[in-house]
Amino acid sequence: MSHKPLKPGEEATDTPLGADATLGFIGHVETPWKRLSDCPKRADPEGPESLVVVNAPWDRALEGVEGFDWIELYLWFHKARRDLLLIAPHHADGPRGVFSLRSPVRPNPIAVTNVRLIAREGARLRVAGLEALDGTPLLDIKPGRCPYA
Amino acid sequence: MSHKPLKPGEEATDTPLGADATLGFIGHVETPWKRLSDCPKRADPEGPESLVVVNAPWDRALEGVEGFDWIELYLWFHKARRDLLLIAPHHADGPRGVFSLRSPVRPNPIAVTNVRLIAREGARLRVAGLEALDGTPLLDIKPGRCPYA
Repeated sequence: MSHKPLKPGEEATDTPLGADATLGFIGHVETPWKRLSDCPKRADPEGPESLVVVNAPWDRALEGVEGFDWIELYLWFHKARRDLLLIAPHHADGPRGVFSLRSPVRPNPIAVTNVRLIAREGARLRVAGLEALDGTPLLDIKPGRCPYA
Repeated sequence: MSHKPLKPGEEATDTPLGADATLGFIGHVETPWKRLSDCPKRADPEGPESLVVVNAPWDRALEGVEGFDWIELYLWFHKARRDLLLIAPHHADGPRGVFSLRSPVRPNPIAVTNVRLIAREGARLRVAGLEALDGTPLLDIKPGRCPYA
Protein backbone atom coordinates (compact mmCIF):
# COMPACT_ATOMS: atom_id res chain seq x y z
CA MET A 1 0.00 0.00 0.00
CA SER A 2 1.42 3.43 -0.84
CA HIS A 3 1.02 6.12 1.78
CA LYS A 4 0.94 9.89 1.92
CA PRO A 5 4.24 11.41 3.10
CA LEU A 6 4.45 12.10 6.84
CA LYS A 7 3.78 15.63 8.07
CA PRO A 8 6.34 17.37 10.31
CA GLY A 9 6.43 15.74 13.75
CA GLU A 10 4.62 12.58 12.62
CA GLU A 11 6.31 9.27 13.35
CA ALA A 12 5.95 5.76 11.95
CA THR A 13 7.51 2.58 13.32
CA ASP A 14 9.65 0.10 11.36
CA THR A 15 8.94 -2.63 13.91
CA PRO A 16 6.59 -5.10 12.24
CA LEU A 17 3.27 -5.55 14.01
CA GLY A 18 2.74 -9.14 15.15
CA ALA A 19 0.12 -11.49 13.73
CA ASP A 20 -1.20 -12.71 17.06
CA ALA A 21 -4.83 -13.47 16.14
CA THR A 22 -6.97 -13.65 13.02
CA LEU A 23 -10.24 -11.96 12.16
CA GLY A 24 -12.96 -13.47 9.97
CA PHE A 25 -15.09 -11.05 8.00
CA ILE A 26 -18.78 -11.85 8.54
CA GLY A 27 -20.05 -9.52 5.82
CA HIS A 28 -19.62 -5.97 4.55
CA VAL A 29 -21.37 -2.61 4.34
CA GLU A 30 -22.76 -0.86 1.27
CA THR A 31 -22.74 2.90 1.67
CA PRO A 32 -23.04 6.02 -0.53
CA TRP A 33 -19.35 6.85 0.18
CA LYS A 34 -17.23 5.52 -2.69
CA ARG A 35 -13.96 7.29 -1.80
CA LEU A 36 -12.35 7.96 1.58
CA SER A 37 -12.59 11.70 0.89
CA ASP A 38 -16.41 11.35 0.55
CA CYS A 39 -16.85 9.82 4.03
CA PRO A 40 -18.41 12.14 6.63
CA LYS A 41 -16.29 12.77 9.73
CA ARG A 42 -19.11 11.70 12.02
CA ALA A 43 -22.07 9.39 11.77
CA ASP A 44 -25.37 11.25 11.28
CA PRO A 45 -28.49 9.29 12.33
CA GLU A 46 -30.48 11.44 9.89
CA GLY A 47 -28.02 10.72 7.08
CA PRO A 48 -28.63 8.60 3.97
CA GLU A 49 -29.46 4.93 4.16
CA SER A 50 -26.80 2.21 3.99
CA LEU A 51 -26.92 -1.57 3.89
CA VAL A 52 -25.26 -4.11 6.19
CA VAL A 53 -24.87 -7.47 4.42
CA VAL A 54 -24.23 -10.52 6.63
CA ASN A 55 -22.84 -13.70 5.06
CA ALA A 56 -24.11 -17.22 5.82
CA PRO A 57 -23.95 -18.86 8.31
CA TRP A 58 -23.69 -15.67 10.38
CA ASP A 59 -27.06 -14.31 9.21
CA ARG A 60 -28.55 -16.90 11.60
CA ALA A 61 -26.99 -14.94 14.49
CA LEU A 62 -29.08 -11.87 13.57
CA GLU A 63 -32.11 -13.37 15.31
CA GLY A 64 -33.50 -10.76 17.69
CA VAL A 65 -31.56 -7.83 16.20
CA GLU A 66 -34.80 -6.46 14.71
CA GLY A 67 -35.91 -5.55 18.23
CA PHE A 68 -33.28 -2.82 18.58
CA ASP A 69 -33.49 0.77 17.35
CA TRP A 70 -29.72 1.25 17.48
CA ILE A 71 -26.93 -1.19 16.74
CA GLU A 72 -23.14 -0.98 16.97
CA LEU A 73 -21.23 -2.09 13.89
CA TYR A 74 -17.66 -3.30 14.33
CA LEU A 75 -15.81 -2.57 11.11
CA TRP A 76 -12.31 -3.25 9.80
CA PHE A 77 -10.78 -0.19 8.17
CA HIS A 78 -8.86 -2.19 5.59
CA LYS A 79 -7.45 0.89 3.83
CA ALA A 80 -5.78 2.38 6.92
CA ARG A 81 -2.02 2.26 7.42
CA ARG A 82 -1.02 0.55 10.66
CA ASP A 83 2.48 1.83 11.40
CA LEU A 84 1.91 5.36 12.73
CA LEU A 85 2.81 6.30 16.33
CA LEU A 86 2.40 10.10 16.22
CA ILE A 87 -0.07 11.96 14.00
CA ALA A 88 -0.49 15.69 13.38
CA PRO A 89 -4.27 16.17 13.14
CA HIS A 90 -5.81 19.24 11.47
CA HIS A 91 -7.51 20.36 14.67
CA ALA A 92 -4.43 20.23 16.93
CA ASP A 93 -1.30 22.38 17.29
CA GLY A 94 1.22 19.59 16.97
CA PRO A 95 1.62 15.84 16.70
CA ARG A 96 -0.15 13.57 19.19
CA GLY A 97 0.01 9.89 20.03
CA VAL A 98 -2.34 7.68 18.04
CA PHE A 99 -3.95 6.45 21.29
CA SER A 100 -4.98 9.99 22.23
CA LEU A 101 -6.89 10.36 18.93
CA ARG A 102 -9.87 8.63 17.38
CA SER A 103 -8.23 8.69 13.92
CA PRO A 104 -8.91 5.62 11.71
CA VAL A 105 -5.12 5.19 11.42
CA ARG A 106 -4.04 2.79 14.20
CA PRO A 107 -2.20 -0.53 14.62
CA ASN A 108 -5.46 -2.49 14.69
CA PRO A 109 -7.91 -0.37 12.66
CA ILE A 110 -11.18 -1.46 14.28
CA ALA A 111 -14.00 1.08 14.21
CA VAL A 112 -17.16 0.88 16.28
CA THR A 113 -20.01 2.96 14.92
CA ASN A 114 -23.49 3.32 16.33
CA VAL A 115 -26.18 3.38 13.65
CA ARG A 116 -29.97 3.60 13.59
CA LEU A 117 -31.62 0.35 12.48
CA ILE A 118 -34.38 1.06 9.97
CA ALA A 119 -35.32 -2.52 9.11
CA ARG A 120 -34.03 -6.06 8.90
CA GLU A 121 -34.62 -7.85 5.60
CA GLY A 122 -33.31 -11.38 6.10
CA ALA A 123 -29.51 -11.23 6.01
CA ARG A 124 -29.53 -7.49 5.29
CA LEU A 125 -29.97 -4.58 7.66
CA ARG A 126 -31.05 -1.15 6.40
CA VAL A 127 -29.40 1.47 8.60
CA ALA A 128 -28.92 5.24 8.79
CA GLY A 129 -25.89 7.10 10.07
CA LEU A 130 -23.07 5.05 8.64
CA GLU A 131 -19.97 7.07 7.72
CA ALA A 132 -17.76 4.20 6.46
CA LEU A 133 -16.41 3.61 2.96
CA ASP A 134 -18.52 1.44 0.65
CA GLY A 135 -17.32 -2.18 0.87
CA THR A 136 -15.79 -1.94 4.34
CA PRO A 137 -15.57 -5.43 5.94
CA LEU A 138 -17.86 -6.23 8.88
CA LEU A 139 -16.52 -7.89 12.04
CA ASP A 140 -19.40 -7.83 14.49
CA ILE A 141 -22.80 -6.38 15.43
CA LYS A 142 -23.95 -5.61 19.00
CA PRO A 143 -27.05 -4.00 20.46
CA GLY A 144 -26.35 -0.26 20.58
CA ARG A 145 -27.11 2.83 22.54
CA CYS A 146 -29.02 5.83 21.28
CA PRO A 147 -26.41 8.49 20.45
CA TYR A 148 -28.81 11.23 21.54
CA ALA A 149 -28.88 9.89 25.11
CA MET B 1 -10.08 -25.51 23.25
CA SER B 2 -12.72 -27.60 25.05
CA HIS B 3 -16.13 -26.05 25.43
CA LYS B 4 -19.12 -26.39 27.72
CA PRO B 5 -21.96 -28.43 26.16
CA LEU B 6 -24.61 -26.40 24.35
CA LYS B 7 -27.83 -25.57 26.19
CA PRO B 8 -31.22 -26.45 24.58
CA GLY B 9 -31.82 -24.19 21.58
CA GLU B 10 -28.22 -23.07 21.29
CA GLU B 11 -26.54 -23.48 17.90
CA ALA B 12 -22.94 -23.59 16.76
CA THR B 13 -21.67 -23.55 13.17
CA ASP B 14 -19.30 -26.08 11.59
CA THR B 15 -18.35 -23.61 8.86
CA PRO B 16 -14.80 -22.47 9.60
CA LEU B 17 -14.45 -18.74 10.14
CA GLY B 18 -12.10 -17.16 7.59
CA ALA B 19 -8.71 -15.67 8.41
CA ASP B 20 -9.21 -12.43 6.50
CA ALA B 21 -7.02 -10.07 8.53
CA THR B 22 -4.52 -10.29 11.38
CA LEU B 23 -4.37 -8.49 14.71
CA GLY B 24 -1.19 -7.51 16.52
CA PHE B 25 -1.36 -7.37 20.28
CA ILE B 26 0.09 -4.07 21.53
CA GLY B 27 0.15 -5.04 25.20
CA HIS B 28 -2.05 -6.64 27.84
CA VAL B 29 -4.02 -5.84 31.00
CA GLU B 30 -3.27 -6.87 34.57
CA THR B 31 -6.43 -7.15 36.65
CA PRO B 32 -7.58 -8.67 39.96
CA TRP B 33 -9.70 -11.22 38.04
CA LYS B 34 -7.73 -14.45 37.69
CA ARG B 35 -10.57 -16.69 36.46
CA LEU B 36 -13.44 -15.96 34.07
CA SER B 37 -15.90 -16.70 36.88
CA ASP B 38 -14.30 -13.88 38.94
CA CYS B 39 -14.89 -11.21 36.29
CA PRO B 40 -17.67 -8.72 37.09
CA LYS B 41 -20.50 -8.56 34.56
CA ARG B 42 -20.06 -4.82 34.14
CA ALA B 43 -17.23 -2.34 34.50
CA ASP B 44 -17.44 -0.33 37.73
CA PRO B 45 -15.55 3.00 37.65
CA GLU B 46 -15.31 2.79 41.47
CA GLY B 47 -13.93 -0.74 41.25
CA PRO B 48 -10.38 -1.89 42.06
CA GLU B 49 -7.36 -0.65 40.17
CA SER B 50 -5.96 -2.46 37.12
CA LEU B 51 -2.91 -1.92 34.94
CA VAL B 52 -2.71 -1.47 31.18
CA VAL B 53 0.76 -2.40 29.90
CA VAL B 54 1.73 -1.16 26.42
CA ASN B 55 4.67 -2.78 24.60
CA ALA B 56 7.36 -0.86 22.69
CA PRO B 57 7.24 0.77 20.21
CA TRP B 58 3.52 1.41 20.84
CA ASP B 59 4.12 3.15 24.19
CA ARG B 60 5.27 6.12 22.07
CA ALA B 61 1.68 6.38 20.78
CA LEU B 62 0.42 7.05 24.33
CA GLU B 63 1.54 10.68 24.09
CA GLY B 64 -1.39 12.88 25.10
CA VAL B 65 -3.43 10.06 26.68
CA GLU B 66 -2.71 11.48 30.14
CA GLY B 67 -5.03 14.40 29.30
CA PHE B 68 -8.13 12.19 29.33
CA ASP B 69 -10.19 11.13 32.34
CA TRP B 70 -11.77 8.19 30.49
CA ILE B 71 -10.30 5.88 27.89
CA GLU B 72 -11.70 3.06 25.79
CA LEU B 73 -9.73 -0.17 25.83
CA TYR B 74 -10.10 -2.53 22.86
CA LEU B 75 -9.45 -6.05 24.14
CA TRP B 76 -9.23 -9.47 22.52
CA PHE B 77 -11.19 -12.08 24.47
CA HIS B 78 -8.77 -14.89 23.65
CA LYS B 79 -10.64 -17.47 25.76
CA ALA B 80 -14.00 -17.08 24.00
CA ARG B 81 -15.31 -19.69 21.59
CA ARG B 82 -16.06 -18.25 18.15
CA ASP B 83 -18.52 -20.68 16.58
CA LEU B 84 -21.84 -19.91 18.30
CA LEU B 85 -24.81 -18.54 16.33
CA LEU B 86 -27.58 -18.79 18.94
CA ILE B 87 -27.09 -18.47 22.70
CA ALA B 88 -29.53 -19.02 25.56
CA PRO B 89 -28.64 -16.29 28.09
CA HIS B 90 -29.65 -16.52 31.75
CA HIS B 91 -31.77 -13.38 31.54
CA ALA B 92 -33.85 -14.38 28.49
CA ASP B 93 -36.64 -16.88 27.88
CA GLY B 94 -35.05 -18.68 24.96
CA PRO B 95 -32.09 -18.65 22.60
CA ARG B 96 -31.17 -15.45 20.79
CA GLY B 97 -28.80 -14.56 17.98
CA VAL B 98 -25.28 -13.65 19.04
CA PHE B 99 -25.63 -10.25 17.32
CA SER B 100 -28.60 -9.34 19.53
CA LEU B 101 -26.50 -9.92 22.67
CA ARG B 102 -23.40 -8.31 24.15
CA SER B 103 -22.05 -11.71 25.24
CA PRO B 104 -18.24 -12.14 24.98
CA VAL B 105 -18.88 -15.22 22.81
CA ARG B 106 -18.85 -14.04 19.16
CA PRO B 107 -17.06 -14.76 15.88
CA ASN B 108 -14.59 -11.92 16.44
CA PRO B 109 -14.40 -11.53 20.24
CA ILE B 110 -13.44 -7.86 20.45
CA ALA B 111 -14.55 -6.03 23.60
CA VAL B 112 -14.58 -2.28 24.04
CA THR B 113 -14.59 -1.16 27.65
CA ASN B 114 -14.61 2.37 28.99
CA VAL B 115 -12.37 2.81 32.03
CA ARG B 116 -11.37 5.70 34.28
CA LEU B 117 -7.75 6.74 33.83
CA ILE B 118 -6.09 7.26 37.21
CA ALA B 119 -2.53 7.94 36.02
CA ARG B 120 -0.06 7.27 33.26
CA GLU B 121 3.34 5.97 34.36
CA GLY B 122 5.42 5.71 31.19
CA ALA B 123 4.21 2.68 29.23
CA ARG B 124 1.70 1.75 31.95
CA LEU B 125 -1.74 3.16 32.65
CA ARG B 126 -3.39 2.79 36.03
CA VAL B 127 -7.14 2.48 35.49
CA ALA B 128 -10.32 1.72 37.43
CA GLY B 129 -13.38 -0.09 36.18
CA LEU B 130 -11.85 -2.90 34.18
CA GLU B 131 -13.85 -6.16 34.22
CA ALA B 132 -11.56 -8.27 31.97
CA LEU B 133 -9.58 -11.37 32.86
CA ASP B 134 -5.99 -10.86 34.01
CA GLY B 135 -3.65 -11.19 31.01
CA THR B 136 -6.21 -10.28 28.33
CA PRO B 137 -4.44 -9.01 25.17
CA LEU B 138 -4.75 -5.32 24.28
CA LEU B 139 -5.60 -4.21 20.73
CA ASP B 140 -6.13 -0.47 20.96
CA ILE B 141 -6.76 2.56 23.18
CA LYS B 142 -8.97 5.54 22.25
CA PRO B 143 -10.11 8.65 24.12
CA GLY B 144 -13.30 7.68 25.94
CA ARG B 145 -16.57 9.06 27.13
CA CYS B 146 -17.64 9.38 30.74
CA PRO B 147 -20.06 6.48 31.37
CA TYR B 148 -22.09 8.69 33.77
CA ALA B 149 -22.96 11.12 30.96
